[in-house]
Amino acid sequence: MIIVGERINATRKQIRAALEKKDRDFFLKEARIQIKCGSDFLDLNAGTGTGQEAEDLAWLINLVQSEYPDIKLTLDSSNTDVLAKCLPMVKNRPVMLNSINAEKKKLDAFLPLLKEFPDVYIIALTMDDSGIPSSWQKRVEIADILYKKLTETGIKEENIFYDGLVQPVGTDSEAFINYLRSLKSIKTSHPATKSICGLSNVSFGLPKRKLINRYALALAMYEGLEAVIIDPVEPGVIETICAVGVLTGKDQFCLNYISNFREGKI
Amino acid sequence: MIIVGERINATRKQIRAALEKKDRDFFLKEARIQIKCGSDFLDLNAGTGTGQEAEDLAWLINLVQSEYPDIKLTLDSSNTDVLAKCLPMVKNRPVMLNSINAEKKKLDAFLPLLKEFPDVYIIALTMDDSGIPSSWQKRVEIADILYKKLTETGIKEENIFYDGLVQPVGTDSEAFINYLRSLKSIKTSHPATKSICGLSNVSFGLPKRKLINRYALALAMYEGLEAVIIDPVEPGVIETICAVGVLTGKDQFCLNYISNFREGKI
Repeated sequence: MIIVGERINATRKQIRAALEKKDRDFFLKEARIQIKCGSDFLDLNAGTGTGQEAEDLAWLINLVQSEYPDIKLTLDSSNTDVLAKCLPMVKNRPVMLNSINAEKKKLDAFLPLLKEFPDVYIIALTMDDSGIPSSWQKRVEIADILYKKLTETGIKEENIFYDGLVQPVGTDSEAFINYLRSLKSIKTSHPATKSICGLSNVSFGLPKRKLINRYALALAMYEGLEAVIIDPVEPGVIETICAVGVLTGKDQFCLNYISNFREGKI
Repeated sequence: MIIVGERINATRKQIRAALEKKDRDFFLKEARIQIKCGSDFLDLNAGTGTGQEAEDLAWLINLVQSEYPDIKLTLDSSNTDVLAKCLPMVKNRPVMLNSINAEKKKLDAFLPLLKEFPDVYIIALTMDDSGIPSSWQKRVEIADILYKKLTETGIKEENIFYDGLVQPVGTDSEAFINYLRSLKSIKTSHPATKSICGLSNVSFGLPKRKLINRYALALAMYEGLEAVIIDPVEPGVIETICAVGVLTGKDQFCLNYISNFREGKI
């Protein structure tokens, strides 16, 4: 299971404030605790809407990779210019890009950039100019379109990480089941591609959201989810991943489970 | 989800001691807390190996049903004579019997009794004279044999609760996945029958067993498990059932989840 630590995101007030102050200690601590909790990638989002995004993202990249050269990075921006400037700065490869989708204008802007950096991992959201489709079949169709465009551009299929866009179960009881259906269906059509998602949206509007989130993660893992964008510091995340690894037979001899237990992580 | 509360089981030392003293308050408390935590059935096992099983089970039945006439009971014994004596005493119907399996001698002794009481719910374990099969396919074959024998005896298929006998993942990494395969396969062959299991065995030998148990319950529910024999007082059981109910779309508008939250149960 690939864990993308999501905490350094400038849409969060506290992060935005620290970014404005260029608070090195704050961000190094955010990086450190996420790495300690098992992150394979750290998502960096510097979109404060102040026109400083490229500079801020570059600053974050340099800060994090100077202190933690072994961690991989996820550059989280919808701005192609920002990514074009920042992508070459990242030393540890592969870099993950968060994200592309099938909106025509966005795709047209992104594809030339991807041609220049064909080794990236790319998160591909199953939405288009009509927004997020309510039907899971339509999401599978969008995944097919993105597959064609991305592989034609030179992206290897195993570097495509589909995000089926989990919707809240509070407004649609079938939302999560439909998400899982799209996950399985895309996996059947394009078995070499990967799947990723941010799960916390599933519990929007409900009490005890973390409880719903951890079981959503468990069920998605069971259906083959390979990567998750999550706050790894949140209690329950690592123990969910370890327990489901044991139950699905992926953790041979329960070695990962037991070593995490010994390290006090579960 | 049907919850069978498993705590009143004389193989547990504390229960055996209370049974020898005929400690009414102890058993009424055990019944009360399990009912409060959502039990639909209470399992009663009085097998102390002292030759007193029929008397002890009769005493338990009368005690529990006098105080809690609305709770249903699961009579847990492998002794046909004990069940023949005790079955007629149970006022609230249906009664669940725990359990039958495909061992020839046991089956020959049980079937005449079931002919007399065709309205029982019967837990059918997928094992035979060779023990618990390691292959899931063999368990499905045993389920087929039991199906034929039980329905020929007059048991309605919807009253058969198959228990696929979860084995520890600590000794066989595929144990739980194979259990789920048998669960799905039996459900496909006999869609009107039900499934039940006791899950705690899955975590035998591992640290933090309750963590493994709750995710095992979640995954089995996702694959259609309809009933579970469990300690409902154990933290995590009710919240697992509620959360998975929401995620699988069975809890329409999350009403059950929210009402359990309001009652402080999750």
